[in-house]
Amino acid sequence: MAFVLFTDFGSADLYVGQVEAVLERDAPGARVIHLLHEAPMFDPRASAHLLAALASRLPPGHVHVCVVDPGVGSARGTVVLNAGGNWFVGPDNGLLSVIAGRAATRRLWRVTRDVPGPSVSFHGRDLFAPLAAAVATGRFPSEQVAAAASLEVDFGADDLPEIVYVDHYGNAFTGLRAAGLPTDRRLVAHDREIAHARVFAEAPSGKPFWYENSAGLVEIAMRGASAARALGLAIGDPVQWR
Amino acid sequence: MAFVLFTDFGSADLYVGQVEAVLERDAPGARVIHLLHEAPMFDPRASAHLLAALASRLPPGHVHVCVVDPGVGSARGTVVLNAGGNWFVGPDNGLLSVIAGRAATRRLWRVTRDVPGPSVSFHGRDLFAPLAAAVATGRFPSEQVAAAASLEVDFGADDLPEIVYVDHYGNAFTGLRAAGLPTDRRLVAHDREIAHARVFAEAPSGKPFWYENSAGLVEIAMRGASAARALGLAIGDPVQWR
Amino acid sequence: MAFVLFTDFGSADLYVGQVEAVLERDAPGARVIHLLHEAPMFDPRASAHLLAALASRLPPGHVHVCVVDPGVGSARGTVVLNAGGNWFVGPDNGLLSVIAGRAATRRLWRVTRDVPGPSVSFHGRDLFAPLAAAVATGRFPSEQVAAAASLEVDFGADDLPEIVYVDHYGNAFTGLRAAGLPTDRRLVAHDREIAHARVFAEAPSGKPFWYENSAGLVEIAMRGASAARALGLAIGDPVQWR
Repeated sequence: MAFVLFTDFGSADLYVGQVEAVLERDAPGARVIHLLHEAPMFDPRASAHLLAALASRLPPGHVHVCVVDPGVGSARGTVVLNAGGNWFVGPDNGLLSVIAGRAATRRLWRVTRDVPGPSVSFHGRDLFAPLAAAVATGRFPSEQVAAAASLEVDFGADDLPEIVYVDHYGNAFTGLRAAGLPTDRRLVAHDREIAHARVFAEAPSGKPFWYENSAGLVEIAMRGASAARALGLAIGDPVQWR
Repeated sequence: MAFVLFTDFGSADLYVGQVEAVLERDAPGARVIHLLHEAPMFDPRASAHLLAALASRLPPGHVHVCVVDPGVGSARGTVVLNAGGNWFVGPDNGLLSVIAGRAATRRLWRVTRDVPGPSVSFHGRDLFAPLAAAVATGRFPSEQVAAAASLEVDFGADDLPEIVYVDHYGNAFTGLRAAGLPTDRRLVAHDREIAHARVFAEAPSGKPFWYENSAGLVEIAMRGASAARALGLAIGDPVQWR
Repeated sequence: MAFVLFTDFGSADLYVGQVEAVLERDAPGARVIHLLHEAPMFDPRASAHLLAALASRLPPGHVHVCVVDPGVGSARGTVVLNAGGNWFVGPDNGLLSVIAGRAATRRLWRVTRDVPGPSVSFHGRDLFAPLAAAVATGRFPSEQVAAAASLEVDFGADDLPEIVYVDHYGNAFTGLRAAGLPTDRRLVAHDREIAHARVFAEAPSGKPFWYENSAGLVEIAMRGASAARALGLAIGDPVQWR
């Protein structure tokens, strides 16, 4: 068992270490894997699709702490989710809904009692991390949560035909799962038709292509160049098949 | 016990891993928590106030390696500090002085004998990390340090009415502690009057507000936007109450 | 024993955590040291010289996972190298060749059998990490590799008279090893003559200097300023002695 963190806290910023310090306090010695701290900021929907794809590629059995949470401090709820055997703790703002929707099995709890004194602005440290550590160490926080039938915000299990992430190479992830897609299909982004290539090394130079990336998503890429810059792609931009 | 690192080494740069490798060599298996590697560069004073606030929010019992050290290689000393039960190793340039000044109890040592061959430019790896590992593993380096009565550079225990950090959301931390402040006070930064809000969700849209942030400091923020950009705030800019 | 990662995956991006999750699956509890994830992108040659210098400063006995791999998915091979007792896993594109060339002892294997189903674009996660974990846990993957006499791409053991890295302070690393160099030599970069200084604190203000940096390389630096910006230095720029 390890903790997996997926947040928009910024990998260079001062929030992640504080979360890790609480996890170390409450679950000493447990590994913390930093999956992503540059999740689409203020954007639970794109983040939900990215998280669902990434989490599906991880070894099983982890406890995920997930934070993309522009409404922190408001009345939005906090949920604990077991999806296919993996645990997730995060805000009830849709962030966990794509994972929940696609899971073979799912159990859901909602936090019903705030612990005394969590900071109003840093639930990742003061609420989610202690909950995750409790789950991870076999002290399920029954006195603090209640079983729930459904999420309050639910983006559903379907694919999202939009850009959900741009990596530092300039590759643009879509929210479309690639498994089983015919490779003669053409993807359209910003009125540009994009053909398939199996790998970077087989793609024509200077032209964008789409392929199944390592997260199982349809990705728009270029060989040795930034597809996002070449095509002007940003998170939220729509894509479609032609 | 874990190590906590607070430096201006850059979270994306090649210095942090080298420090961690030395800690692993000298204290195998101990956790290393990366609190911040983007501390105000070349600025021990702002860093000292930020560090004091952050360290006060961490679980107790850690050994902190602290490096904001423009004078590395000069005659400035190296100190080992026990402040309220927590350990700190770093340069004697004021970086640890705010913590020392505010601590209920404090013991101080100064390095009197350089270990052979530390690099002249990377004391974090070659001097501070071995010292921290010695402290953490119960091998207090008595032969290498001597008790000291005071720091050579001391910024004092008082608050600092300046911006000391800007996070990646654009929130601007001041060096003012927020506990107990009346919330009808207005903060002035760059001639702009800023009112209080309890949380982001309760703040008016498009207007900066101040609140007690998760480090216990007065922070200037905006809802879904960068307060630092909107107000042109940078580290070192003065603030005052009206 | 720890894992040491040296990649161009980006310290803020979503690739590193996935590698770490596989290492945790296959070698539970082993430490992972993030040496650098901003290695010169698409540039195995500069990266090879930087890696050789950095690895020489680490405590011995680690298993390094090295990825600067623009040709991933092409026919380039994968190698496992033991150089002076330290292990390295990476692409056979020259990245490990400077280390191999300088090592007192060296043993080399080439991957002969792909494991079923590694993703075509993420060998770091799907091929290198499992190999590294096998080596680290004493399960040498004999059935998957064969001894090899030499690397397919070899940059040699000599120094590289070019900029190989620029750190976040703006210090420019060359591929020249500094040990034993007379300090009255002048380095030329972009037609500018640069004199030696022992440490930052002894350098004249506002003028670039060269010195032996903490990785043992000749570095061009300025006191409290970015030498790279002042001189317009970038990775690949040539330097020479006068």
